Amino acid sequence: MQVENILQSKGTAVHTVASHARIADAVQMLNTHRIGAVVVVEEGGEVAGILSERDIVRKMGADPTAFLQTTVAEVMTRSVVVVERHESIASVMEKMTEHRIRHLPVCENGALVGIVSIGDVVKRKIEEAEQEASALREYIAS
Amino acid sequence: MQVENILQSKGTAVHTVASHARIADAVQMLNTHRIGAVVVVEEGGEVAGILSERDIVRKMGADPTAFLQTTVAEVMTRSVVVVERHESIASVMEKMTEHRIRHLPVCENGALVGIVSIGDVVKRKIEEAEQEASALREYIAS
Repeated sequence: MQVENILQSKGTAVHTVASHARIADAVQMLNTHRIGAVVVVEEGGEVAGILSERDIVRKMGADPTAFLQTTVAEVMTRSVVVVERHESIASVMEKMTEHRIRHLPVCENGALVGIVSIGDVVKRKIEEAEQEASALREYIAS
Repeated sequence: MQVENILQSKGTAVHTVASHARIADAVQMLNTHRIGAVVVVEEGGEVAGILSERDIVRKMGADPTAFLQTTVAEVMTRSVVVVERHESIASVMEKMTEHRIRHLPVCENGALVGIVSIGDVVKRKIEEAEQEASALREYIAS
Protein backbone atom coordinates (compact mmCIF):
# COMPACT_ATOMS: atom_id res chain seq x y z
CA MET A 1 0.00 0.00 0.00
CA GLN A 2 1.54 3.25 -1.19
CA VAL A 3 0.98 7.01 -1.14
CA GLU A 4 -0.11 6.57 -4.78
CA ASN A 5 -3.22 4.65 -3.63
CA ILE A 6 -4.33 7.52 -1.42
CA LEU A 7 -3.82 10.05 -4.22
CA GLN A 8 -5.84 7.86 -6.58
CA SER A 9 -8.89 8.13 -4.35
CA LYS A 10 -8.53 11.70 -3.04
CA GLY A 11 -6.99 13.31 -6.12
CA THR A 12 -3.83 15.33 -6.56
CA ALA A 13 -5.19 18.83 -5.91
CA VAL A 14 -3.19 20.75 -3.30
CA HIS A 15 -4.20 24.10 -1.86
CA THR A 16 -1.18 26.39 -1.99
CA VAL A 17 -0.44 29.90 -0.83
CA ALA A 18 2.36 32.34 -1.69
CA SER A 19 4.93 33.05 1.02
CA HIS A 20 4.23 36.81 0.77
CA ALA A 21 0.48 36.32 1.40
CA ARG A 22 -0.95 37.44 4.77
CA ILE A 23 -1.85 34.97 7.51
CA ALA A 24 -5.44 36.26 7.26
CA ASP A 25 -5.60 34.98 3.66
CA ALA A 26 -4.20 31.60 4.67
CA VAL A 27 -6.76 31.31 7.50
CA GLN A 28 -9.55 32.09 5.05
CA MET A 29 -8.23 29.43 2.69
CA LEU A 30 -8.11 26.80 5.47
CA ASN A 31 -11.66 27.63 6.49
CA THR A 32 -13.14 27.86 3.00
CA HIS A 33 -11.72 24.50 1.95
CA ARG A 34 -12.14 22.92 5.40
CA ILE A 35 -8.53 21.74 5.44
CA GLY A 36 -5.85 21.65 8.12
CA ALA A 37 -2.80 22.90 6.22
CA VAL A 38 -1.74 24.75 3.08
CA VAL A 39 1.53 24.25 1.24
CA VAL A 40 3.57 27.42 0.76
CA VAL A 41 5.14 27.71 -2.69
CA GLU A 42 7.60 30.10 -4.31
CA GLU A 43 6.82 31.73 -7.64
CA GLY A 44 8.70 28.97 -9.46
CA GLY A 45 6.47 26.37 -7.82
CA GLU A 46 9.08 25.03 -5.36
CA VAL A 47 7.82 24.11 -1.89
CA ALA A 48 8.99 26.77 0.61
CA GLY A 49 7.12 25.60 3.67
CA ILE A 50 3.85 24.40 5.12
CA LEU A 51 1.35 26.30 7.27
CA SER A 52 -1.02 24.34 9.50
CA GLU A 53 -3.78 25.14 11.98
CA ARG A 54 -1.21 24.19 14.63
CA ASP A 55 1.32 26.78 13.38
CA ILE A 56 -1.38 29.44 13.62
CA VAL A 57 -2.51 28.56 17.15
CA ARG A 58 1.05 28.15 18.40
CA LYS A 59 2.27 31.48 17.04
CA MET A 60 -0.74 33.82 17.23
CA GLY A 61 0.52 35.23 20.55
CA ALA A 62 -1.03 38.03 22.56
CA ASP A 63 -1.81 40.28 19.59
CA PRO A 64 -3.54 38.07 17.01
CA THR A 65 -4.94 41.04 15.09
CA ALA A 66 -1.40 42.12 14.18
CA PHE A 67 -0.51 38.45 13.68
CA LEU A 68 -3.14 38.12 10.92
CA GLN A 69 -1.31 40.85 8.99
CA THR A 70 2.11 39.18 9.09
CA THR A 71 3.23 37.23 6.07
CA VAL A 72 2.94 33.48 5.70
CA ALA A 73 6.74 33.36 5.34
CA GLU A 74 7.16 34.55 8.94
CA VAL A 75 4.92 31.87 10.43
CA MET A 76 5.20 28.79 8.20
CA THR A 77 7.22 25.71 9.11
CA ARG A 78 10.24 25.78 6.81
CA SER A 79 11.62 22.31 7.38
CA VAL A 80 9.00 20.45 5.38
CA VAL A 81 8.94 16.66 5.62
CA VAL A 82 7.77 15.27 2.28
CA VAL A 83 7.00 11.82 0.87
CA GLU A 84 7.26 10.30 -2.57
CA ARG A 85 4.45 8.83 -4.61
CA HIS A 86 5.77 5.28 -4.24
CA GLU A 87 6.54 5.46 -0.54
CA SER A 88 4.63 3.04 1.67
CA ILE A 89 1.78 4.06 3.98
CA ALA A 90 3.85 2.53 6.80
CA SER A 91 6.62 5.04 6.05
CA VAL A 92 4.08 7.89 6.00
CA MET A 93 2.78 6.80 9.42
CA GLU A 94 6.30 6.67 10.83
CA LYS A 95 7.17 10.14 9.54
CA MET A 96 3.95 11.60 10.97
CA THR A 97 4.57 9.97 14.37
CA GLU A 98 8.27 10.84 14.54
CA HIS A 99 7.80 14.50 13.63
CA ARG A 100 4.36 14.87 15.26
CA ILE A 101 2.88 16.27 12.05
CA ARG A 102 -0.39 15.62 10.30
CA HIS A 103 0.28 16.65 6.70
CA LEU A 104 2.94 15.49 4.24
CA PRO A 105 3.27 17.06 0.78
CA VAL A 106 3.93 14.48 -1.92
CA CYS A 107 6.81 15.47 -4.22
CA GLU A 108 8.17 14.02 -7.44
CA ASN A 109 11.42 15.37 -8.88
CA GLY A 110 11.00 18.46 -6.73
CA ALA A 111 7.46 19.15 -7.94
CA LEU A 112 4.42 19.08 -5.68
CA VAL A 113 2.03 16.32 -6.83
CA GLY A 114 -0.29 15.90 -3.85
CA ILE A 115 -0.72 16.02 -0.10
CA VAL A 116 -1.48 13.27 2.41
CA SER A 117 -3.09 14.00 5.79
CA ILE A 118 -3.23 11.80 8.88
CA GLY A 119 -6.99 11.59 8.29
CA ASP A 120 -6.36 10.17 4.79
CA VAL A 121 -4.05 7.53 6.29
CA VAL A 122 -6.58 6.42 8.91
CA LYS A 123 -9.36 6.32 6.30
CA ARG A 124 -7.16 4.15 4.07
CA LYS A 125 -6.37 1.80 6.99
CA ILE A 126 -10.11 1.25 7.55
CA GLU A 127 -10.65 0.47 3.86
CA GLU A 128 -7.71 -1.93 3.93
CA ALA A 129 -9.13 -3.78 6.96
CA GLU A 130 -12.55 -4.00 5.28
CA GLN A 131 -11.01 -5.40 2.08
CA GLU A 132 -9.11 -8.02 4.09
CA ALA A 133 -12.25 -9.02 5.98
CA SER A 134 -14.17 -9.27 2.73
CA ALA A 135 -11.46 -11.40 1.11
CA LEU A 136 -11.44 -13.71 4.16
CA ARG A 137 -15.23 -14.07 4.03
CA GLU A 138 -15.06 -14.98 0.33
CA TYR A 139 -12.29 -17.49 1.04
CA ILE A 140 -14.33 -19.15 3.80
CA ALA A 141 -17.46 -19.25 1.65
CA SER A 142 -15.69 -20.84 -1.31
CA MET B 1 -6.72 -3.96 20.34
CA GLN B 2 -8.71 -1.56 22.47
CA VAL B 3 -8.71 2.05 23.67
CA GLU B 4 -7.50 0.60 26.99
CA ASN B 5 -4.16 -0.35 25.36
CA ILE B 6 -3.53 3.21 24.24
CA LEU B 7 -4.34 4.58 27.70
CA GLN B 8 -1.94 2.06 29.27
CA SER B 9 0.96 3.51 27.34
CA LYS B 10 0.06 7.21 27.24
CA GLY B 11 -1.63 7.47 30.64
CA THR B 12 -5.04 8.75 31.63
CA ALA B 13 -4.24 12.42 32.22
CA VAL B 14 -6.55 14.78 30.32
CA HIS B 15 -6.09 18.52 30.11
CA THR B 16 -9.41 20.16 30.89
CA VAL B 17 -10.67 23.73 30.93
CA ALA B 18 -13.77 25.31 32.48
CA SER B 19 -16.49 26.48 30.09
CA HIS B 20 -16.34 30.01 31.57
CA ALA B 21 -12.57 30.31 30.91
CA ARG B 22 -11.40 32.67 28.14
CA ILE B 23 -10.22 31.40 24.77
CA ALA B 24 -6.84 33.06 25.52
CA ASP B 25 -6.41 30.69 28.50
CA ALA B 26 -7.33 27.67 26.40
CA VAL B 27 -4.83 28.71 23.70
CA GLN B 28 -2.12 29.05 26.34
CA MET B 29 -2.98 25.59 27.66
CA LEU B 30 -2.78 24.03 24.16
CA ASN B 31 0.59 25.67 23.57
CA THR B 32 2.10 24.94 26.99
CA HIS B 33 1.22 21.25 26.83
CA ARG B 34 1.77 20.98 23.06
CA ILE B 35 -1.62 19.36 22.54
CA GLY B 36 -4.31 19.76 19.92
CA ALA B 37 -7.47 19.86 22.04
CA VAL B 38 -8.73 20.40 25.59
CA VAL B 39 -11.84 18.85 27.08
CA VAL B 40 -14.31 21.35 28.52
CA VAL B 41 -15.85 20.26 31.83
CA GLU B 42 -18.59 21.59 34.08
CA GLU B 43 -17.98 22.14 37.78
CA GLY B 44 -19.38 18.68 38.56
CA GLY B 45 -16.83 17.14 36.20
CA GLU B 46 -19.24 16.28 33.37
CA VAL B 47 -17.96 16.78 29.82
CA ALA B 48 -19.57 19.90 28.32
CA GLY B 49 -17.62 20.09 25.08
CA ILE B 50 -14.25 19.92 23.40
CA LEU B 51 -12.12 22.76 22.06
CA SER B 52 -9.54 22.02 19.37
CA GLU B 53 -6.99 23.97 17.37
CA ARG B 54 -9.44 23.59 14.50
CA ASP B 55 -12.30 25.22 16.46
CA ILE B 56 -10.03 28.17 17.17
CA VAL B 57 -8.86 28.69 13.58
CA ARG B 58 -12.38 28.20 12.17
CA LYS B 59 -14.03 30.67 14.51
CA MET B 60 -11.40 33.37 15.18
CA GLY B 61 -12.94 35.58 12.48
CA ALA B 62 -11.86 39.09 11.53
CA ASP B 63 -11.33 40.33 15.11
CA PRO B 64 -9.25 37.68 16.85
CA THR B 65 -8.24 40.03 19.68
CA ALA B 66 -11.88 40.21 20.82
CA PHE B 67 -12.22 36.50 20.06
CA LEU B 68 -9.49 35.66 22.62
CA GLN B 69 -11.66 37.31 25.29
CA THR B 70 -14.78 35.28 24.55
CA THR B 71 -15.54 32.29 26.74
CA VAL B 72 -14.68 28.73 25.87
CA ALA B 73 -18.42 27.92 26.07
CA GLU B 74 -19.11 30.16 23.06
CA VAL B 75 -16.53 28.49 20.83
CA MET B 76 -16.30 24.83 21.89
CA THR B 77 -17.87 21.96 19.98
CA ARG B 78 -20.81 20.83 22.11
CA SER B 79 -21.68 17.58 20.39
CA VAL B 80 -18.77 15.56 21.74
CA VAL B 81 -18.18 12.11 20.25
CA VAL B 82 -16.73 9.88 22.99
CA VAL B 83 -15.42 6.32 23.19
CA GLU B 84 -15.37 3.72 25.94
CA ARG B 85 -12.33 2.09 27.46
CA HIS B 86 -13.12 -1.30 25.90
CA GLU B 87 -13.99 0.00 22.46
CA SER B 88 -11.80 -1.26 19.61
CA ILE B 89 -9.20 0.87 17.84
CA ALA B 90 -11.09 0.06 14.63
CA SER B 91 -14.17 1.74 16.10
CA VAL B 92 -12.07 4.76 17.14
CA MET B 93 -10.72 5.07 13.59
CA GLU B 94 -14.21 4.88 12.13
CA LYS B 95 -15.55 7.57 14.46
CA MET B 96 -12.62 9.88 13.66
CA THR B 97 -13.07 9.38 9.91
CA GLU B 98 -16.86 9.71 9.94
CA HIS B 99 -16.93 12.89 12.02
CA ARG B 100 -13.63 14.29 10.66
CA ILE B 101 -12.29 14.76 14.20
CA ARG B 102 -8.89 14.05 15.74
CA HIS B 103 -9.62 13.71 19.46
CA LEU B 104 -12.02 11.45 21.32
CA PRO B 105 -12.49 11.74 25.10
CA VAL B 106 -12.70 8.34 26.80
CA CYS B 107 -15.65 8.09 29.21
CA GLU B 108 -16.70 5.48 31.73
CA ASN B 109 -20.10 5.79 33.45
CA GLY B 110 -20.17 9.43 32.45
CA ALA B 111 -16.73 10.20 33.92
CA LEU B 112 -13.76 11.32 31.84
CA VAL B 113 -10.98 8.71 32.08
CA GLY B 114 -8.68 9.65 29.19
CA ILE B 115 -8.38 11.06 25.68
CA VAL B 116 -7.27 9.44 22.43
CA SER B 117 -5.88 11.45 19.52
CA ILE B 118 -5.50 10.44 15.89
CA GLY B 119 -1.73 10.59 16.49
CA ASP B 120 -2.06 8.01 19.29
CA VAL B 121 -3.98 5.71 16.96
CA VAL B 122 -1.38 5.91 14.19
CA LYS B 123 1.45 5.36 16.70
CA ARG B 124 -0.38 2.27 18.01
CA LYS B 125 -0.88 0.94 14.47
CA ILE B 126 2.88 1.16 13.85
CA GLU B 127 3.63 -0.70 17.10
CA GLU B 128 1.06 -3.35 16.16
CA ALA B 129 2.67 -3.86 12.75
CA GLU B 130 6.13 -4.11 14.35
CA GLN B 131 4.90 -6.70 16.86
CA GLU B 132 3.35 -8.76 14.07
CA ALA B 133 6.57 -8.61 12.01
CA SER B 134 8.60 -9.62 15.06
CA ALA B 135 6.28 -12.57 15.82
CA LEU B 136 6.53 -13.71 12.19
CA ARG B 137 10.33 -13.53 12.28
CA GLU B 138 10.40 -15.61 15.47
CA TYR B 139 8.01 -18.14 13.92
CA ILE B 140 10.20 -18.48 10.82
CA ALA B 141 13.37 -18.81 12.90
CA SER B 142 11.92 -21.52 15.16
